[in-house]
Amino acid sequence: MPQTNLQSSNPKSTKLIQRLSCAVAIAASLMPTAARCDEGMWLFNALPKKQLASKYQFEPTQEWVDHVMLSSVRFNSGGSASFVSSNGLVLTNHHVAADTLFKLSTAEHNYNEDGFLAKSLQEEIPATDLELNQLISIEDVTAKVNEAVKADMAPADAFKARQATMAQIEKESLDKTGLRSDVVTLYGGGRYHLYRYKKYTDVRLVWAPEAASAFFGGDADNFEYPRYCLDVTLFRVYEDGKPAKIDHFLKMDPDGAKDGDLVFVSGNPGRTRRILTSDAVEFQRDTSLPRTLNMLRRREIALQQYGLEGPEQTRRGRDDLFGVQNSRKAYTGMLAGIQDPSFIEAKRKNEQDIFKTLQADPKLAGLAKAWETIRDLQSKRRDMVLKSASLRTQLTGFAEKIVLMATEDTKPSAQRLREFRDSARQSLEQELFSEVPVYDDLERALLADELSRLAEDRGGNDPLVQSVLAGKNPRTRAAEIIAGTKLHTAQGRKELAKQGLEGIKNSTDPLVVLLRSLEPEYRKIREATEAIDEQERQAYAKVTEAKFAAGGDSVYPDATFTLRLSYGAVSGYQSKGKAIPAHTKIGGAFEHEKVHLQKDPWVLPKSWHAAKDSLNPDTPFNFVATADIIGGNSGSPVVSRDGAMVGIIFDGNIESLPGDFYYSDQQARSVSVHIAGVLEAMRKIYQAGHLADQMGK
Amino acid sequence: MPQTNLQSSNPKSTKLIQRLSCAVAIAASLMPTAARCDEGMWLFNALPKKQLASKYQFEPTQEWVDHVMLSSVRFNSGGSASFVSSNGLVLTNHHVAADTLFKLSTAEHNYNEDGFLAKSLQEEIPATDLELNQLISIEDVTAKVNEAVKADMAPADAFKARQATMAQIEKESLDKTGLRSDVVTLYGGGRYHLYRYKKYTDVRLVWAPEAASAFFGGDADNFEYPRYCLDVTLFRVYEDGKPAKIDHFLKMDPDGAKDGDLVFVSGNPGRTRRILTSDAVEFQRDTSLPRTLNMLRRREIALQQYGLEGPEQTRRGRDDLFGVQNSRKAYTGMLAGIQDPSFIEAKRKNEQDIFKTLQADPKLAGLAKAWETIRDLQSKRRDMVLKSASLRTQLTGFAEKIVLMATEDTKPSAQRLREFRDSARQSLEQELFSEVPVYDDLERALLADELSRLAEDRGGNDPLVQSVLAGKNPRTRAAEIIAGTKLHTAQGRKELAKQGLEGIKNSTDPLVVLLRSLEPEYRKIREATEAIDEQERQAYAKVTEAKFAAGGDSVYPDATFTLRLSYGAVSGYQSKGKAIPAHTKIGGAFEHEKVHLQKDPWVLPKSWHAAKDSLNPDTPFNFVATADIIGGNSGSPVVSRDGAMVGIIFDGNIESLPGDFYYSDQQARSVSVHIAGVLEAMRKIYQAGHLADQMGK
Repeated sequence: MPQTNLQSSNPKSTKLIQRLSCAVAIAASLMPTAARCDEGMWLFNALPKKQLASKYQFEPTQEWVDHVMLSSVRFNSGGSASFVSSNGLVLTNHHVAADTLFKLSTAEHNYNEDGFLAKSLQEEIPATDLELNQLISIEDVTAKVNEAVKADMAPADAFKARQATMAQIEKESLDKTGLRSDVVTLYGGGRYHLYRYKKYTDVRLVWAPEAASAFFGGDADNFEYPRYCLDVTLFRVYEDGKPAKIDHFLKMDPDGAKDGDLVFVSGNPGRTRRILTSDAVEFQRDTSLPRTLNMLRRREIALQQYGLEGPEQTRRGRDDLFGVQNSRKAYTGMLAGIQDPSFIEAKRKNEQDIFKTLQADPKLAGLAKAWETIRDLQSKRRDMVLKSASLRTQLTGFAEKIVLMATEDTKPSAQRLREFRDSARQSLEQELFSEVPVYDDLERALLADELSRLAEDRGGNDPLVQSVLAGKNPRTRAAEIIAGTKLHTAQGRKELAKQGLEGIKNSTDPLVVLLRSLEPEYRKIREATEAIDEQERQAYAKVTEAKFAAGGDSVYPDATFTLRLSYGAVSGYQSKGKAIPAHTKIGGAFEHEKVHLQKDPWVLPKSWHAAKDSLNPDTPFNFVATADIIGGNSGSPVVSRDGAMVGIIFDGNIESLPGDFYYSDQQARSVSVHIAGVLEAMRKIYQAGHLADQMGK
Repeated sequence: MPQTNLQSSNPKSTKLIQRLSCAVAIAASLMPTAARCDEGMWLFNALPKKQLASKYQFEPTQEWVDHVMLSSVRFNSGGSASFVSSNGLVLTNHHVAADTLFKLSTAEHNYNEDGFLAKSLQEEIPATDLELNQLISIEDVTAKVNEAVKADMAPADAFKARQATMAQIEKESLDKTGLRSDVVTLYGGGRYHLYRYKKYTDVRLVWAPEAASAFFGGDADNFEYPRYCLDVTLFRVYEDGKPAKIDHFLKMDPDGAKDGDLVFVSGNPGRTRRILTSDAVEFQRDTSLPRTLNMLRRREIALQQYGLEGPEQTRRGRDDLFGVQNSRKAYTGMLAGIQDPSFIEAKRKNEQDIFKTLQADPKLAGLAKAWETIRDLQSKRRDMVLKSASLRTQLTGFAEKIVLMATEDTKPSAQRLREFRDSARQSLEQELFSEVPVYDDLERALLADELSRLAEDRGGNDPLVQSVLAGKNPRTRAAEIIAGTKLHTAQGRKELAKQGLEGIKNSTDPLVVLLRSLEPEYRKIREATEAIDEQERQAYAKVTEAKFAAGGDSVYPDATFTLRLSYGAVSGYQSKGKAIPAHTKIGGAFEHEKVHLQKDPWVLPKSWHAAKDSLNPDTPFNFVATADIIGGNSGSPVVSRDGAMVGIIFDGNIESLPGDFYYSDQQARSVSVHIAGVLEAMRKIYQAGHLADQMGK
């Protein structure tokens, strides 16, 4: 499922290709882009107009572009969505909503498993901590940001100067416009754009189907195709206690997304790393991804073990487990993709070609040095990655932020660690002080595993490990910390944060004591990492220059969890010698259930069986297209030439998993729920006709 | 489940303590062993007679010792058992038998899940590849083995010379007695004993209950207590096509194992590492165990993913999955135990005390150097461990052995890699050329994962990795190798082996080509590892001398998957402030099922519910004792003072998991099925009264 989990910086999914990347193939040949494939996550202020015109004879008007941009919504928690009515309805994926469904659920009401329907506005339930963003404008601020950095600055100083200027720009914009203002680093540091968003923080749950329908086929079918998933959920945004009035929303086109149709995906791809040099890819292949996978597998096992303790534990851990399994499957495919020797070989050949172009031009020749800089930085990055001083649980995440914040708040906004700047404060407090459920037994299990991991990473003799374990084994130590902390309530976190630095220094809360002991090392590693980041940023700015020089205007920036437009054709593909058609039908869900003997996870909810006879079995249900997507695109509207909604992205197929590093349209596909299937299910299965009637109006 | 999987050298389980080890505590104080705890896996030719006399007023006669020894059986595949009738019945655990049950099963007959009953001798099914060993005699050959090694030999040469002498001793013994003859390295190299075994290779399946009863509570209950598992299976050994006539077998004592009773465990603990110096433990803690756990977790996930493909895949992968989950849980507990700073601290203090003893005696002072040698060897070991050139799947295991064997067979027996020596040939061929099922789809999935792991371990640019992947991604490469090999049949393996070295050199079988490319690096690593082993062996011989000097006769050797006697009392324990009684009753199984809402894995088989009313609910079912056990002890008979059978070991509790490194009897317990429960179930649930009647007679 494409969805970016920003907190862990582990995208909940990803996408694209089997063998050779289009980007690499094209850049390697340096040919014009006549037969170009449907690659690219394009900036709304730099769309690939030539390609669209030549391949699809489509020329978007500025009105079309603005309408699609303003109808698009970002879930700040990681995911995409769109406005689908004038009265504030927002359509996203069930798996993007899962975090909220989970937080609203209790042992009595399991909205994630059982679904939810508000029969009236009064029944709509406020989400605990959602922030939705609507992109309003984009401004290029590259010159201003680069001005801050002088040629003779040490990397750490340069990093700070750049951050300070970015924070300054954001603050001025916020003060002037009242809009959320983020400076976005594009092309790994080649460009800086200021994105202004309107924020919605009163977001209410309107309708969700059962998990068994949204995630039909479970982990087994995840990233597979054909699929039969109703992976959607409806929210509504409110302003001043009333449904917000929305000017730009999408019309519904249930007859769209026919085979071969051009479609657009407007969403927020979380992260791609296609700009990486071959040396940087090797670091990912040999160090970073294997380590990430080890961590994901250990978390998966830990959550499974926890779930064995009982049905309530299974429920408590399910959302996390689902996310982790999804990431693990995605990263496994990604790693296998870049372990393919032909990929790195093609990348190296492409680099050789670029070097030749550069050498031919004395003004450009110096740029090649950037590749050497990046190569040399990889071993430094390795040292940083292998030693971590962070613990990854919900409670340690809260505690880490509150402990850091206390010191950061004694500095001017522009000098703080980026997440503590004034312009981001409201979002941060929403995250820290919301009434989200914290389960002590789950925290205990995960903290024990994390303490064990810290000891493994740094070695048992490491002074930090010794201090953290305090002479006890990880399990005993975790139990005593969780039993003693007060940070599991929003109230407890608020009280601690209010006391500022003195409060942190004097606290005897064992979790605060723990995070305090980690803080110096955390800061050391963070500072060193930021210095490496800055040096890479400067180097990738040069790599980008070189690529623009070699590849003309066919260069789009890597994904940054900001709004992008992808395009492609609705199109099936070949797999293992078989033709996979582009569409599935709603009736196929019942056949799929039958083929799998109606065994978990292939059990459709009762509501489906009850409604079976009233459904039109030929209604399009899921479909695939060549559009270039990645984790974070989950919930993105799929839009027709006419700017109407034809579907909603919810996954990529297994062949799309290496898309983090390269794109191909040979077999890689984005997977969507067809809007006709959504409306049919709402009306016939879920008694949500009153909501279906509001959509598009 | 205590069971050693020798092939992978991952014990399927392990055992014993919470905080401070008895061994460490006692050695640290160097006090006499009056209040000594029930520690130790004692050699049958060096039993702890003083301790037994002083604590339990028990003095075993030689007749008693011989009877218990000769009634004990080793499953060469990893596990323990005993003769329980004069006509060849052998009782072991269901989970020791699982490998065989699994190999005998097909898509139609699932003996592992559904159980099996032979109503007559004719219906008993020959196992595919079992070898059972009965220990006949023990001889100390230390002087002879050490003679071979001269003081000035380089480690690699010393290793070879020692191996050659060991092989020579074994060959002479085999020729003279016709018995399987193994020289066993004890005390890490401090002693060498020659073990002679009678072998049984015609072993037939007689009765097995359903997996749901044997492994009631599944992975969730594994290593937990109280338990309600009928973890037993009956085999029968044959000679000349008839049930073997057995002189030494155990009588049944269904009234035994009362609270506080002294009991003995006679079995084959697989491996403990209590002799390790603190530096060697640190290597285990910071490098070896974390790496092993990462590999186990990745295999667990790979098997789970494979099982998602369908019920038949679930069946095919289940035995492996169960073994891996069991190991993962065991290693997790083991690692947590040695991550406890108090353990390593106590060990270091103990070493300081030994050093003091040594320094006080000029004849002993030189021994302290051994600790330095071991410390220096750990970093070398680390280099070896992190780079592997082995792939761990069933087929690559076969291929690796056949490829190595071809070269080894050109050398005299004494100079070969140990597993290829003449005296072990019969057992090796039994393993390589048996008709065991090989599932291509499972092999494909695991090989893809293993190729990926090799690339992660060695880095994608490593020439060996490049050659192994042959320009393809791991999944594609694995698929083409498995599709092309002929080694999945016994016939294919026999034919290849028959052709010898020329056949291997000229083979175009892709699996042979793969293993051929790994062979040079495999040999390089193996040779370097053996040189390290030899140096450690010499050093641990000195450590042992020092310990004997400091600790008197209270020193038993670490487990070596050879027959040992442990002892202890039937005794409950305290956990989380609650008293856990020593016994459970057969009626408790139904209550345990009810408490868990009869949800998987707490679903008793239909046979149990059908027989419920006829069962005596108060029959003892499972019980715990303080006896010192570890993986490999699975299936060990639990024997009374009178030398009668009172139970059969099947697990250790979670507190026993660090037992690989230290023992305690505070909370750590061995877990057994009571023989009364076994007989009651055979008679009332399984219509196996005719077999129950044979037992003990």
